[in-house]
Amino acid sequence: MPVYKAPVEDTLFVLNDVLGIERFNNLPGFADASADMIEAIATEAAKLAEEVLFPLNLSGDQEGCRRNDDGSVSVPKGFKEAYDKHCEGGWSGLSVPEEFGGQGLPYTLHAAVGEFMSSANMALMMYPGLTNGAVAAILVHGTAEQKKTYLPNMVSGVWSGTMNLTEPHCGTDLGLLRTKAVPQPDGSYKISGQKIFISAGDHGMTENIIHLVLARIEGAPEGTKGISLFIVPKFVLDADGKPGAGNGVSCGAIERKMGIHGNATCVINHDEATGYLIGAENKGLAAMFVMMNEARLGVGLQGLAISEAAYQNAADYARQRIQGRSLTGPKAPDRQADPIIVHADVRRTLMQIRSINEAGRAFMLYTALQSDIAHRSPDAAERQKADDILSIMTPILKGVMTDRGFENAVQAQQMWGGHGYIEENGMSQYVRDARIAMLYEGANGVQAMDLVGRKLAANGGRAVMAVFKEIGDFCEENRAEERLAPFTKAIKKGLNDLQAATMWFMSNAMAKPDNAGAGATDYMHLFGIVILGFMWGKSAKAALEKQDAGDPRTEFLANKLITATFFMERMMPETALRKARIESGADATMALDEAAF
Amino acid sequence: MPVYKAPVEDTLFVLNDVLGIERFNNLPGFADASADMIEAIATEAAKLAEEVLFPLNLSGDQEGCRRNDDGSVSVPKGFKEAYDKHCEGGWSGLSVPEEFGGQGLPYTLHAAVGEFMSSANMALMMYPGLTNGAVAAILVHGTAEQKKTYLPNMVSGVWSGTMNLTEPHCGTDLGLLRTKAVPQPDGSYKISGQKIFISAGDHGMTENIIHLVLARIEGAPEGTKGISLFIVPKFVLDADGKPGAGNGVSCGAIERKMGIHGNATCVINHDEATGYLIGAENKGLAAMFVMMNEARLGVGLQGLAISEAAYQNAADYARQRIQGRSLTGPKAPDRQADPIIVHADVRRTLMQIRSINEAGRAFMLYTALQSDIAHRSPDAAERQKADDILSIMTPILKGVMTDRGFENAVQAQQMWGGHGYIEENGMSQYVRDARIAMLYEGANGVQAMDLVGRKLAANGGRAVMAVFKEIGDFCEENRAEERLAPFTKAIKKGLNDLQAATMWFMSNAMAKPDNAGAGATDYMHLFGIVILGFMWGKSAKAALEKQDAGDPRTEFLANKLITATFFMERMMPETALRKARIESGADATMALDEAAF
Repeated sequence: MPVYKAPVEDTLFVLNDVLGIERFNNLPGFADASADMIEAIATEAAKLAEEVLFPLNLSGDQEGCRRNDDGSVSVPKGFKEAYDKHCEGGWSGLSVPEEFGGQGLPYTLHAAVGEFMSSANMALMMYPGLTNGAVAAILVHGTAEQKKTYLPNMVSGVWSGTMNLTEPHCGTDLGLLRTKAVPQPDGSYKISGQKIFISAGDHGMTENIIHLVLARIEGAPEGTKGISLFIVPKFVLDADGKPGAGNGVSCGAIERKMGIHGNATCVINHDEATGYLIGAENKGLAAMFVMMNEARLGVGLQGLAISEAAYQNAADYARQRIQGRSLTGPKAPDRQADPIIVHADVRRTLMQIRSINEAGRAFMLYTALQSDIAHRSPDAAERQKADDILSIMTPILKGVMTDRGFENAVQAQQMWGGHGYIEENGMSQYVRDARIAMLYEGANGVQAMDLVGRKLAANGGRAVMAVFKEIGDFCEENRAEERLAPFTKAIKKGLNDLQAATMWFMSNAMAKPDNAGAGATDYMHLFGIVILGFMWGKSAKAALEKQDAGDPRTEFLANKLITATFFMERMMPETALRKARIESGADATMALDEAAF
Repeated sequence: MPVYKAPVEDTLFVLNDVLGIERFNNLPGFADASADMIEAIATEAAKLAEEVLFPLNLSGDQEGCRRNDDGSVSVPKGFKEAYDKHCEGGWSGLSVPEEFGGQGLPYTLHAAVGEFMSSANMALMMYPGLTNGAVAAILVHGTAEQKKTYLPNMVSGVWSGTMNLTEPHCGTDLGLLRTKAVPQPDGSYKISGQKIFISAGDHGMTENIIHLVLARIEGAPEGTKGISLFIVPKFVLDADGKPGAGNGVSCGAIERKMGIHGNATCVINHDEATGYLIGAENKGLAAMFVMMNEARLGVGLQGLAISEAAYQNAADYARQRIQGRSLTGPKAPDRQADPIIVHADVRRTLMQIRSINEAGRAFMLYTALQSDIAHRSPDAAERQKADDILSIMTPILKGVMTDRGFENAVQAQQMWGGHGYIEENGMSQYVRDARIAMLYEGANGVQAMDLVGRKLAANGGRAVMAVFKEIGDFCEENRAEERLAPFTKAIKKGLNDLQAATMWFMSNAMAKPDNAGAGATDYMHLFGIVILGFMWGKSAKAALEKQDAGDPRTEFLANKLITATFFMERMMPETALRKARIESGADATMALDEAAF
């Protein structure tokens, strides 16, 4: 049976020691997040994850969701009860402003505990996760009335939310969408069209489901300029604001998917459903991007979360499974064979996953912190800088952590040998679940193009310069510290590769945009390695400082330095490969005739 | 719906133009394999693959296998009829000596058409595939009587075969196995014990199933020195050599697996089953390795096969799916959007998969050819050299082509966006099916250790020197040809990295074996890239020669050179990364306490 234990100690190390979250207690909500409070919240979240969510993970995968003959949707056994406990704990609204029923705590903290919960049960956590995205959109673009009407029940989890974007013929290119909205005399709209791949699209766990739906108002311009966003409740609210008559929204089918079986991914049919415009007419994409950016962070988090869960199960198995003897002589001479963790190739695998997970956790929380600063800082310059960094980090976190998260899940499964291929052992589920994160909320190639084609050049490269400066300054400021030199040197080398690749784009992609496209994915990963290396640099520095201060976490801190060293030696050299690929350009890539493929 | 078309033209290019198979017509069976005959056989195999096997691939995955209440096993609808057609075509015995009912043709040809069939339906092809392994073991280790008794019906496919190795507590470390064999007065044995993960373990498609079972004769030494191999038929043969009474062999359960659902992977219980010793007492592992080496080539082939099938579906989708516009302006201005194949990141992905598949096909057939030479050449020195090369190539082909095959399947699935995650589109199946090839017949970490720990040093490094020399000579001989220089230069650089890494092991792994273990997987992949590069070098040379000779395959040959260029630019630089990782050694890898993972 799979195991899971939330990495509370590691999360606290990142929040307190690496990111120094107490430095931000001038931000709204941060003062309430004292070190003690953070520890208490993380511990409570760990308990929910381990004891309530995790026991339903494998069974939820095996049972899956079902569309019943009456059109209703059933979720796996136990999901409703676990969902209710999640709501009762107030976890949905952790970082939502108090005026809408939330707790107003940092989003960073929401992300920290979100990792635990997604590790424990990704499919289940997508139900509140989608609600969070919808809440974010209403918070930013809703009218005061809409906020009052919808937010409290969504924040408490009594109602849930969804994002209705994709249609059978369009995902990435939403300009092609056909769902139409016909204005009604009362100011509402009638929405008609088919949406697919709607996560948490229908179920009976909540009293209402608030769909946020992209549609085209009759007569609107073609393409992305004619798209608007609508609130379409499953049950139209009555005069008291309570779920009333059923709306013209139905689940046409549940998709048969590779993984996340516990989440009801629905075909949602809108048949003259009553909808309410949110945000300005024809400005739906901007409103949608509020959800989308929040969702992309959440998906990057899922990559980390599954990687961590898979890692723990690989390590657990490697300690227990006996097979063969160590190359350096028997390590368990009293047994018939050694546990496979003695084998260097097994350790190499575990160290690789671990070195990405721990830096990935710092990366994820660092990014979440930028979001907090961007939204909460009283200082406009600070807000702008954080927003800049956030805009760069979002596609990298999403693309890199889901690619790496999947690879790590595959490698963790590999540790189990043939037993990893058997469904009841749970490793297959991690791989199948992790796979979706590379695809949804913008396939990773789209993230890479967002980074290279949009984010790099925005505001004259202001954002990317800020990131480079932060990393460069870190190397510069710490080069005198001898114990940090192996780290700063390796990071600096990676940064040089990254800057050279960036310059190469500047020089070669203007005249020939395919040079950007052909290098985009490698660039995203090159950037990702440098960021992860930077996170290890910051972690190593924090570990050394704590060691010097006589911190009692002796082994924990020593292991940080070892794992950082592993990352520098084994992972950082990848930057040169990525750079070489980028600089080879697009010629060979684009030369074949379409028909030749 | 998925598509598949056997790459006949490409296979013929490899056999005729790259490997020059006609040069070997002094070997038994090769004279019968004229260019015309090879083309006819490949075309016929393509037909079977496309028209008979492929239409059952997705349905076989969705239906799966079933153990019935009476203990019998059902395979998916249509499998029996397709299996029969495969037998009728004589495909099982293509390369088996004629005296046992085979056609005596080259194993290389068997491998060539095997790719098509595994692409079309891997799960189905495992039934005859396992029989082939059992046939190989009986051919080498069976007595004349055993060959006469079992081979003709196995070669025709009227009976099938399996390999019964793994037990719940042991896979890699077969020294731990517990299944016991008790000698009987008539010279037979009673076999008792439980075997797991038995591919094609039970079904009703054949009149008998010949299990080859590893077991320990009562009183035999512990560990690998006490293991013997037995023939255990499902039905004991009667006096006429026909399947008679049921034996004490039963399917206890069918494993619920991530993929290859169409293959009945069984728990096989032996309960005083009648078995017959094959090969010498306590020498079972040697006999088993005959099957295993054959099987490892077959598994490497599966990696390629699924990668090719997945590639074709990715390319097909990329030509059809319209979404967004090219960065260089609309390519399909009459449509609402361009087909996604115009995007450089999509092409980069397709080119990457393609560049590995085409070189992988050459690698696979080159390796199969070594097997033919090793087994059939009249010249002892030639046999030895081929056997040396084969011994090195086998773990690399298995490990590298299954790792790459899986990655390629994942990347092909990625081209489909969210639609790739939906089971009915077939891309998930390719990923799930490809996953097993990294695990079975020795997990890829075991292949890496076989290469580094066993194959490198064997006979004073004779084999690896032969490989290095062949590649080095190729670069040397062709350095004067200007058009080949970009290829030979890149290959030489890769070879240098490979040789340096090899030297590093020589200098650093004797005193500290973990340095070998920690670098083994990177070394296997470093070797793999160099071999694939070498195959591209040979292919480019062949393409240029054909161009110079006015060969009419104008576009085909030009595309070979483009794809070779892509590989040199984008894939070869990986050798430096692999070398750097190897040379970082095992210190950080081994430093953590076991309990810290």
